[in-house]
Amino acid sequence: MARSQFNVGLVGYQFMGTAHSNAYRQVGRFFDLPVEVVMKGLCGLGEAQLKAAGQKLGWQDYYETDYRKFVKRPDLDLIDIAVSNNMHAEMAIAAAKAGKHVYCEKPLAMDLAEARRMVRAVERAGVKHAISFNYRACPAVALAKQLVDEGRIGRIFHWRGQYLQDWIVDPKFPLVWRLQKEVAGSGAHGDLIAHLIDTAHFLVGDIAEVVGDMRTFVKQRPRLKATVGGLAARAAKGMGRVTVDDASVFLARFASGAVGTFEATRFAPGHRNYNFFEINGSKGSMRFCFERMNELEFYDASDPPHLQGFRVIQATDPKHPYVAAWWPPGHIIGYEHTFIHTVYNVVTAIAKGKLPSPNFYDGLKCQAVLEAASNSVKSGTWEKVRV
Amino acid sequence: MARSQFNVGLVGYQFMGTAHSNAYRQVGRFFDLPVEVVMKGLCGLGEAQLKAAGQKLGWQDYYETDYRKFVKRPDLDLIDIAVSNNMHAEMAIAAAKAGKHVYCEKPLAMDLAEARRMVRAVERAGVKHAISFNYRACPAVALAKQLVDEGRIGRIFHWRGQYLQDWIVDPKFPLVWRLQKEVAGSGAHGDLIAHLIDTAHFLVGDIAEVVGDMRTFVKQRPRLKATVGGLAARAAKGMGRVTVDDASVFLARFASGAVGTFEATRFAPGHRNYNFFEINGSKGSMRFCFERMNELEFYDASDPPHLQGFRVIQATDPKHPYVAAWWPPGHIIGYEHTFIHTVYNVVTAIAKGKLPSPNFYDGLKCQAVLEAASNSVKSGTWEKVRV
Amino acid sequence: MARSQFNVGLVGYQFMGTAHSNAYRQVGRFFDLPVEVVMKGLCGLGEAQLKAAGQKLGWQDYYETDYRKFVKRPDLDLIDIAVSNNMHAEMAIAAAKAGKHVYCEKPLAMDLAEARRMVRAVERAGVKHAISFNYRACPAVALAKQLVDEGRIGRIFHWRGQYLQDWIVDPKFPLVWRLQKEVAGSGAHGDLIAHLIDTAHFLVGDIAEVVGDMRTFVKQRPRLKATVGGLAARAAKGMGRVTVDDASVFLARFASGAVGTFEATRFAPGHRNYNFFEINGSKGSMRFCFERMNELEFYDASDPPHLQGFRVIQATDPKHPYVAAWWPPGHIIGYEHTFIHTVYNVVTAIAKGKLPSPNFYDGLKCQAVLEAASNSVKSGTWEKVRV
Amino acid sequence: MARSQFNVGLVGYQFMGTAHSNAYRQVGRFFDLPVEVVMKGLCGLGEAQLKAAGQKLGWQDYYETDYRKFVKRPDLDLIDIAVSNNMHAEMAIAAAKAGKHVYCEKPLAMDLAEARRMVRAVERAGVKHAISFNYRACPAVALAKQLVDEGRIGRIFHWRGQYLQDWIVDPKFPLVWRLQKEVAGSGAHGDLIAHLIDTAHFLVGDIAEVVGDMRTFVKQRPRLKATVGGLAARAAKGMGRVTVDDASVFLARFASGAVGTFEATRFAPGHRNYNFFEINGSKGSMRFCFERMNELEFYDASDPPHLQGFRVIQATDPKHPYVAAWWPPGHIIGYEHTFIHTVYNVVTAIAKGKLPSPNFYDGLKCQAVLEAASNSVKSGTWEKVRV
Repeated sequence: MARSQFNVGLVGYQFMGTAHSNAYRQVGRFFDLPVEVVMKGLCGLGEAQLKAAGQKLGWQDYYETDYRKFVKRPDLDLIDIAVSNNMHAEMAIAAAKAGKHVYCEKPLAMDLAEARRMVRAVERAGVKHAISFNYRACPAVALAKQLVDEGRIGRIFHWRGQYLQDWIVDPKFPLVWRLQKEVAGSGAHGDLIAHLIDTAHFLVGDIAEVVGDMRTFVKQRPRLKATVGGLAARAAKGMGRVTVDDASVFLARFASGAVGTFEATRFAPGHRNYNFFEINGSKGSMRFCFERMNELEFYDASDPPHLQGFRVIQATDPKHPYVAAWWPPGHIIGYEHTFIHTVYNVVTAIAKGKLPSPNFYDGLKCQAVLEAASNSVKSGTWEKVRV
Repeated sequence: MARSQFNVGLVGYQFMGTAHSNAYRQVGRFFDLPVEVVMKGLCGLGEAQLKAAGQKLGWQDYYETDYRKFVKRPDLDLIDIAVSNNMHAEMAIAAAKAGKHVYCEKPLAMDLAEARRMVRAVERAGVKHAISFNYRACPAVALAKQLVDEGRIGRIFHWRGQYLQDWIVDPKFPLVWRLQKEVAGSGAHGDLIAHLIDTAHFLVGDIAEVVGDMRTFVKQRPRLKATVGGLAARAAKGMGRVTVDDASVFLARFASGAVGTFEATRFAPGHRNYNFFEINGSKGSMRFCFERMNELEFYDASDPPHLQGFRVIQATDPKHPYVAAWWPPGHIIGYEHTFIHTVYNVVTAIAKGKLPSPNFYDGLKCQAVLEAASNSVKSGTWEKVRV
Repeated sequence: MARSQFNVGLVGYQFMGTAHSNAYRQVGRFFDLPVEVVMKGLCGLGEAQLKAAGQKLGWQDYYETDYRKFVKRPDLDLIDIAVSNNMHAEMAIAAAKAGKHVYCEKPLAMDLAEARRMVRAVERAGVKHAISFNYRACPAVALAKQLVDEGRIGRIFHWRGQYLQDWIVDPKFPLVWRLQKEVAGSGAHGDLIAHLIDTAHFLVGDIAEVVGDMRTFVKQRPRLKATVGGLAARAAKGMGRVTVDDASVFLARFASGAVGTFEATRFAPGHRNYNFFEINGSKGSMRFCFERMNELEFYDASDPPHLQGFRVIQATDPKHPYVAAWWPPGHIIGYEHTFIHTVYNVVTAIAKGKLPSPNFYDGLKCQAVLEAASNSVKSGTWEKVRV
Repeated sequence: MARSQFNVGLVGYQFMGTAHSNAYRQVGRFFDLPVEVVMKGLCGLGEAQLKAAGQKLGWQDYYETDYRKFVKRPDLDLIDIAVSNNMHAEMAIAAAKAGKHVYCEKPLAMDLAEARRMVRAVERAGVKHAISFNYRACPAVALAKQLVDEGRIGRIFHWRGQYLQDWIVDPKFPLVWRLQKEVAGSGAHGDLIAHLIDTAHFLVGDIAEVVGDMRTFVKQRPRLKATVGGLAARAAKGMGRVTVDDASVFLARFASGAVGTFEATRFAPGHRNYNFFEINGSKGSMRFCFERMNELEFYDASDPPHLQGFRVIQATDPKHPYVAAWWPPGHIIGYEHTFIHTVYNVVTAIAKGKLPSPNFYDGLKCQAVLEAASNSVKSGTWEKVRV
């Protein structure tokens, strides 16, 4: 029996656009989907570049440089937004108004007000919506969620989240868009700590109040000449001002009474993409670090006293979330697979008429924490999280 | 400028067939190739299954159940053999005779005599040939080779290789083809220790003599009902005899004077795909384990005395082999990427009229060591390696 | 040539008393000291218990139950105070007034006011003083200091300190003195985070302001029957109120501009004595965890790009601080050695007429941070550190 | 009630003499012994050095340069032999003849014949005997034994032992006694692989046959000027021949059917004292490395499928062997403690009229494997182990 087609239109063909494109190409090769994913159209700036990218990435039907027209194409079921943060709201709202389901990169918006508008737009339009908190789709993180749900962690006392990178430590690294407030909204804050917040929401629950601090260590940088691949770039002459944070930290009080610490920085030499969390509960503890994303460390306090210890679970067995689709145990997967899993979830949910998870509500909740933390930096005191 | 097409025909659609198919689909999306890879035809048993697999895996032109016809198709440039070991020689020789370039899974053959015939066939036919020692194409292993070549290890004293798995520890696991001598040739020996031998050849050099031991811990197993994915399987009623080794170990004397230990087993609980080596030389040491394939550990004896220590290099920077094609630093890759890299090497070399590396000569050399080790188990003494 | 005697009087014979006694017994066996350490007298409660402890621990001259008399013994050069925190000030001041050098366990005092009085007392008396921040005397931590001083870390961006334990997660664990405010002053705060603060002072420098949070997860516990060894205890009938924090966290702004996070808890299952820090600077990073106290992890950003990675330095070579006195490389040392090294520093400095390091000024500075953090919990905002 | 005295006489005051002396000084401070250990007399070469060492190490009654007289002192209960291997037999036999209990460093003897004479001597004399296989007394190794005995490992398939050091990689390191056959008997073989053999005997059982290889990588070295501490040394002018192995490897067939690999080397840069083993059995696996001697890694194959993984057990809880005598959980111990535990076992057993374990029979069994492995290097084939 032929499956119906599910037509995707993607906006953006840089780092995230590449990762999303790969996900659409691969998802049906490894997972059973209720629909056939069709990589219909690609939208982006620069006609020639767009076309070259589209062919490389597998978007073969059409290319469109005007997103306003793009979102109205009648043959598209889903609009995927994988561009810089300042465009998320505008595009998502336009897509929703055009009656399209929307899948958006994180952080959802530039600020909380924008995020609220986006949520209202998708609600009014009655379309499905999803957000790309892709780290939830690491098998090891999904396993962590399963352990929480199975009651193996018990009452949670502590969340400890760190997202450490080092790609801009060199003061000669140029002023890319991620370092400009008007495009990115914020720095490590919205880029990295947003992921930690979402994972904490996923595994621990709601955050009630926060107090934080931010720092910009390098305040002037060479202007940008060109980006080169994912995050790399070349410098031009002249200097410009960095208008976002290089590092963001905050303390959190979870609604449940748990204590949280959050830290994100792009100034931690030796850490390339160290997205780490640890959870301590009355029955056990868990640790995860993306750089070893196939592993979850788990301490079971109910083990016999002489046998207690953190165990390194390779989340690569068919029993583990998402893994049955892939290779035999111990044959690890990588970064791109988190997008394939996310797209699998998004497409499957929408095809079945369900709301994907995580979605704009999760994006909104994350934005509310980001905003409370930003506010606390200005106020110097605890700020309540208000969604 | 349009690139010329490079038509591939693949034989086999199980575990290895899936990995190879993925490689052909993905290679041109991330790497610049001198030709356009076309997934022309798929060959395998069972018409219906073959067709279903072919569609899933992206082979859209034709499906063929008779390999003799398949290798003669005039539109194929390369025959890729990804089936059980007992078919390698027959197919490779037929393909060579038909004037096709050949890319074959490892181990090259069932025994040394067969391997020699295969080498003779490709030499006579004047076709290019390659073998799928895919672990060479881990960025971390390629980096290890680079360190050797840069002189950072110095005179090599020790090679220590272990390939540990645990998928058949349960005596109720059934008698899959990998446990039958007439299909597999050998057990852990040809399946796992072959990889170690090749990596040792790649990094340390030729092996002069060996003395070894083998063991079959579980001698009777339930007959096979069906395989399920990569290595998993379901049992039928009745028992059958295991005719291959569960574990294989040997000591080696390298031509250079280095001392080697080799160990492979499918009976090491806790190790899913622990393909490990360590090398100790006069200037430094290196360690690698596939389960953390994005990392290479390196000890530099020339570091200041108070700063010496094994460093964990994440081989995920653009400076590392193969990585520039992928994601930013710290965004790791996985098992399937080793095949993409291997296919990249094979296609690029052949397109440029060069012999790929590794190739049948490497397969032959590996086979010679396998055979010497097998012979030493019978003779109880050191056996010289004779290619 | 005979060395002059250096007579020590110790107050306390529980966990810390045992560790200090061992240090006095052992220091002269492995280190060359300018004086001969004599374990003169032991002071503590309970005549019979005191005597038994004294003999076991090697205090053979006399035992005294009244500390007021003890500190006035004319034959004592140094009074070592290793009792519960509520007695530190009283005893240290009495010892100083009696003209004795004083070596005190941490935290220096119950609060900042007390700490200031203690500093005034030793200054007025003109005696030498020292505090037992023993973790400074781990070879790996002393090595970390050396790397900072050698400029290998550069400008410090981040301090990340965590001191995680799990010995009171069980709500049935009884109300030991460490859980009573009137005896301990505070919980994880003064016991654990005090160590982190001192290490941060040692390696990063002064802390300017802080904002923190504390939590008591288990508010009622069984009353205490008896302590058993270091930290273990047996419960009696009846319940009592826990009056200290189970966990303490704070954000810090260092005077240098570095960002700090501090966390201490006794509710982190799987962590027995996980005293951890990480420092990120412009030229490199360092990590340390006490549970692997013989190791320092170091990332050198000036390594060639393809060779960068955290290296695990075993701080067990003669070139490393304190190590030449001990065993050959790789023959590790343990917890008790940190006290031997501390005592070595204290005795050597005093014998040479110098002020030991760390001393009461370090204790005072730590106390000021503890107090600012406590105050911030009440005020809900950043508090300046005022020594 | 006063305990009777147990008078110890030690021969040797270098590396091992220092470690043994420390053990006698410390054992009664932490463990309850049925007797009072008295450090009666020290025997060694060079009157002045002997006396200086004796005072430093705590041997305060008398010093004796003639071991023949020493072993006959009527006030000694135990003779402890901690000198170079070529003196073990002579001294142990003399001590036994004098009716003294004997505790000897490993390897027991220079060869199997000598070992047999030693066993005969202690049997004839009816004295107790012990050997210093101190690694058995690591809490983590004793825990490993407990896990085997509890049936948690099941049928053992594999033993994998490696003892890696790097202190003589530099060809300028001089010709110390450990590199001279007439004093040491062998190199890495008797020094390092002997420990692995004993641990394998302890945990896996008897070894039936072996085939091995040895290598001397650096054949000429500068003559020795002076030793400096444990293993360090200074070179004099002129060169001499190295007459022992730098590395020794062998394959083993255990009586039980398990497969063993053994490797020891002094040429593995980055490994200071890497005494490692792994055991794989039908129910679980275990790993240990001395450089992290407080940890045992354990994989329990009976864990739920999604929770399986090697766990890192910190063997520092009171429930773990030997640990209750020491510090709270997570407060690690070190190399010297293995000797304290060994001495505790030796003294306790003898005081109770029992034969300590391990003893000369274990030493003999180890010697038989060493000899079989040496013989196999000459014969080039498997050699049976004959005790």
